[in-house]
This record gives sequence, C-alpha cells and structure tokens, in this order.
Amino acid sequence: MTTLARGPRGAQVPADVTVAEVRAPGAVVEVVFGPDGHRAVFEPRWLARYGEPDAGAGAAPGGQDDGRTEDAKRLWAAADLGGEPPQGWWPRYLADPVHRRSCLSAVLEQGLVVLHGVPCEPGAVLAVARSLGYVRETNYGRLFDVRAEPAPANLAFTRRPIAPHTDNPYRDPVPTLQLLHCLRGAAGGGESTFADGFRAAAVLRSQDPAAFACLTTTPVTFAYSDEVTELRATGPMIGLDPRARIRQIRFNDRSLTPVRLPTAQARAFYAACRAFTERISSPEATVTAMLSPGDCVIIDNTRVLHGRAGFTDRRGGGRRHLQGCYADLDGLASTVAVIARGHPGHPGHLGHSGPAGRAGS
Amino acid sequence: MTTLARGPRGAQVPADVTVAEVRAPGAVVEVVFGPDGHRAVFEPRWLARYGEPDAGAGAAPGGQDDGRTEDAKRLWAAADLGGEPPQGWWPRYLADPVHRRSCLSAVLEQGLVVLHGVPCEPGAVLAVARSLGYVRETNYGRLFDVRAEPAPANLAFTRRPIAPHTDNPYRDPVPTLQLLHCLRGAAGGGESTFADGFRAAAVLRSQDPAAFACLTTTPVTFAYSDEVTELRATGPMIGLDPRARIRQIRFNDRSLTPVRLPTAQARAFYAACRAFTERISSPEATVTAMLSPGDCVIIDNTRVLHGRAGFTDRRGGGRRHLQGCYADLDGLASTVAVIARGHPGHPGHLGHSGPAGRAGS
Repeated sequence: MTTLARGPRGAQVPADVTVAEVRAPGAVVEVVFGPDGHRAVFEPRWLARYGEPDAGAGAAPGGQDDGRTEDAKRLWAAADLGGEPPQGWWPRYLADPVHRRSCLSAVLEQGLVVLHGVPCEPGAVLAVARSLGYVRETNYGRLFDVRAEPAPANLAFTRRPIAPHTDNPYRDPVPTLQLLHCLRGAAGGGESTFADGFRAAAVLRSQDPAAFACLTTTPVTFAYSDEVTELRATGPMIGLDPRARIRQIRFNDRSLTPVRLPTAQARAFYAACRAFTERISSPEATVTAMLSPGDCVIIDNTRVLHGRAGFTDRRGGGRRHLQGCYADLDGLASTVAVIARGHPGHPGHLGHSGPAGRAGS
Repeated sequence: MTTLARGPRGAQVPADVTVAEVRAPGAVVEVVFGPDGHRAVFEPRWLARYGEPDAGAGAAPGGQDDGRTEDAKRLWAAADLGGEPPQGWWPRYLADPVHRRSCLSAVLEQGLVVLHGVPCEPGAVLAVARSLGYVRETNYGRLFDVRAEPAPANLAFTRRPIAPHTDNPYRDPVPTLQLLHCLRGAAGGGESTFADGFRAAAVLRSQDPAAFACLTTTPVTFAYSDEVTELRATGPMIGLDPRARIRQIRFNDRSLTPVRLPTAQARAFYAACRAFTERISSPEATVTAMLSPGDCVIIDNTRVLHGRAGFTDRRGGGRRHLQGCYADLDGLASTVAVIARGHPGHPGHLGHSGPAGRAGS
C-alpha cells in the first residue's frame, strides 16, 4: 500500500515498483523502493491511518467517506430541532473559537444556524461570510438586497410568500452556502421557513421509491435571464453520489424550465416533483424563525430549503430589508477543521526525496 | 404539458389541474386552467419550444441536454488543434464582440484559449476574469503569484516540471475555470502543456473499460492543508452525469490522498489511475504553448489538464512570473449567450396572473 501512498506520481513511478527495504530506526519509518532506490520517510501514525481498512470497519469498500452526503448529516424534522433552527451569538462567535466551531458545525450537521447580534449595518453579512470562508461573487454582486421594490423583477422583491427552494440552481457550480442578514423587520408576517431537503428526499425514497428514482435520474434545466445575464444549469433535482447517497438538492419552482419529455414521462416527472414538494412543505418538516434586525442565517444551499411567509411593511416606517450573499461549504468545513486542530496542523509524511510536499494547485 | 409549463408551483397547483380553455386571439395563446380558473398567456414560439419532443428528435428521453458533458464538447488530440491551443487577441477581444464570443466559445468547446496582448501589469488577470464572469476568491486570495520561491510550500513555487493536473480538486465546488497570465518568462524551458481530460477518459473507456469503471465509481479524497487551511473533497476521478456521460475530471497526483481499500482493490485502483495518467500524458494528447509576457490562458478546469516543463531563471534578470485566478464556467457561458442574443433577451412567457416572472433566487 505504501508504494503509492502519496498518489500515483504520473508515469514517473515505475510500473514494477516494489518495497525494497523498510527501516524503523526510531520515531519514523523509512521505506526504500525498488527498482530505483527512491526513499521516503513516514510517520507510523500516518501509515496506520492509511493502511488497509479492517474488514468490519467503517471505511466502506467503495472508497473514501464524504462529509457532504446524507451519511455525514443529522437529518431532521421540525420536532428534532424543537421547531426552531440552531442558534448562535455573533459577539461570542467572534470571541470564542468553541462557540464558533459549534455554530459552524451546526451548518455541517443540521444545514443551518441563526446568528443573533450581528451589527445592523449594511454589508455586515460580508463580515459573517469572511469569518467562515470566501464570498462567492455573482451577477447579483458580492452582496444583494432583499426588499419590496416598486417594479420587482423577482418574487424576492415583493411582499408575497415564497415557497421553499434552494437558491440559484441555474448556476453550476451552485453556491453551496447562502447567508441572509436582517437589517429591518416587517410590520407583520415575513417569517422565514426552513426544511431539510435531505430528509425529505430520504422520506420520499422510503415512501415512494419510483418518484425518488425519477427525481434522481431525470436531468432538469434551471434558467435565469435578464438584460445582461443568461444562466442555465442542468442536473437532477435530487443528486446522488456514485454510491447512491443523497448529496445535492436543486429545487426552485420559479427557475425550473419545462422538462422536454414524452407526455407520459412528463406526467410522471411532475407527479414525482409534487410528491417531493409535499414532503418539503409539510408542517412536520418545517421550522420557522422570525428574523429580527441583527439576525443572520447561514444555510447549506445544497441541502436546506428556505422560504418565507408574505408580509406587510410599515406605512412610512421603512421596508423589511435583508441583505444576502453567497459563499461555499468547503471553506466553512476548512474553518471548522482548523479550529478543531487546536494547534497548527502538519502532514504526516515528513520527508520525501522527490518534489516538494503538499500541493497547492 | 402547458399546465405546469412554468414548473410545479409548490403544493399550490391543484393536483387535478386541467386545461379548461385555450384562446388564440392574436399573437399570443391564452390558457385558462381548471379547476381554479388560473389564466396564463404564452407566446406560440415558446410553447413550440417546450412542447413534447419528436420521437426521433435530439431531445433524449432521459431529459434535458447539458452543455457541460462530453456530448457538448469537441474532444481533441494534439493533432486536432494543430499542436497548439486556440488563440485570441485581447485588444480585439475587448473591441469586438464577435471575437470575444469566438474566444470564449473555444473554452466551452475545446476547453481552453490563449489570449495574447494582455497588459503586463500585476492584476491584469483579474480584468480578464471580470470580462467573462466573476473571480472565485479562495484561501489563495483573489489573485495568486506563481514563481520560484526560496522556501516553496508548493511544487508550483519551484522551477521543477509539473505533471498534467486539474487545479484544486480538494475544493468542492472546484473552481471550474483557471486563468494564468504571464508577466515574465523563464530564461529557458517552462513550456505549458495541456491535455483534454474528457478525450483521455473516452479513450480509456474504449481501450480499458474496467479501468474506466473503476475511476468513475471509486470516490477518492483530495486534500490540502497549511497553517490556516484544511480542505478536503471527495469524488470520483472521472465524474459522470446521471446518463453516464463524462462530465468532470479531478486529477492531481500531489493532492490525492491514499485510497483506503482492501489491497486487491487498491492495486486495481492505482493500475487504473496509471492507465489514465498514461493517456493524459502521452505526446499524442498534449499540446504545448510557451507563454510569453502578456499571454493569458483560460482553462476549463473540469476538463483540461495543465502542466509545465521545468525551467531556469535568468541570473539577476528576474524570475519567471505568472499570476493566476479562478472563476466559473457558468458566468462564461452566460457571457457567450448574451453576446449571441445580439439584442436584449426577454422571456417567452409574457404574462401570468400569479406571482412575478423569472426568478432571481
């Protein structure tokens, strides 16, 4: 196993590579490879970590584990969360790495967290995004405003209710995190709603396997266009990994384009879509939160659907105003991992007579 | 088909929806739906576009076409490109939408283009990225420098050769575009190499189906870590869409972590990996380009692998210096589509008595 432990170095690794000699003079293990005498030094702990998995152990025969599928998540119905999203407190998040890690872990495990106490200042949502990763700039800018407009080009810019959806499925890659920060509340209504799309898909799989199969194997196209933009992306509504685990929900009934299928298949698709919608929209699946000024919700946009109730604005008192931005889960997971280290990490493979160590490109 | 033509509007669409009446008073088609009397207005052209596909037409029974798989690409060996990448000219790119579209279409079709005449100024690569989409900021910043460093943390920061690879497979989502802009050349060597990963995978599929199956179904983990970063991402080296078309290459032997598999499977995996590497690295597959100051290459990082020959720097004459950044294919495809319109686009669905039209979220 160790002969190619750092991956196949192109065609430079001899096809007939062998382990010629192993020395363990002290804290490290030295391996000399044949036929070319290449020498490498390993930490025993590292070798143990990457050795052949036990037959009964968690490392599945299909390959590596993946923190992004249903297997790594804690799926929830509303009751499992006590009816409200996980909560955190921004000043403490800034001051205390343990709290920060806990808030960000909620995004990895449950798919969302609401941070209270974020300053009610325009642009503050960007600071939240920068605390956990990197802002994903799009045609909407680095930052976008959500409030009722006189001539709305988007349902978000009205006071109407919005059904549960994931954002931007017409983009590929989809932004994997969405942040929404409340600067001013509504006069009435406007509750945010959240539902676990992974759980809804898992429920569909057990209750209506044919519908689940349809939504995992039918690529559909989502589209958005305006004067300067024309985005399209195609994929199944319920994306699976190569081992058939639920991995990515794309669901937005406003940007879904009509599927082009023979009528019987189209009917089956829309029936499956309705079956999924019902599981996403059920009260049992839905947690609500009334975002108050200073609240910022962070959402795993590959998993958790969000929506809102209709609302009214105050007469002359200013409109409900949220600011949003996008970011990505990989940066958030990196931040959690670095906090979890407690100390600067270093690779287990200490030395190598070939090219330099860990890659950046 | 038209009853749900704009997608299933959540559970609000009656399950027993029908078409109650169709009127075509003039240039538009009015449809009244039962049982609730919902009324919508369509352009006949739009209805024709989204009607039931002809039995023998291109719209496959499995659903929508996808511009990101092998089906939408022109796969190439070196000879197909005349041994060098598609070329463009930055001043003309800026001035002439036809040339701009042609350069960007090369990225969509062949997976890369080299633009000459980009100003030799630090940061100019960001202007190129902004001309086609949005910069993807990462832990390396919005912009990164590639040159030999006294204490390199990365093979890129040496003068050594780099085998063909895709960038950042330890990220999910992976940046789907990479840009590299040459500010200063080497004294000798340093040729850039490019290979079409989709073609290499297709060749592998036809010549060694077992190796292809192994690389498409075995999730592997890529990792990168430094003092403040710990990124991991897992997926197959050759990613397929739900209809088994080649869609995403992840290949970087420096960031691949050892696969944890029973020994026989691990041997099979590394043998498959070597078989793929040989097809990626063969002279027949490889085009080369010597990037001169002012040249900027734009690469589809889901498809085209890039590498470089080793080089020497001038004594006292300054080091070879590239600047790079990441961006995404969806923005580039949007830019091409908007140029192709020739006029501001507008959706075919002219009116609707329900919520507002095209979605932004």
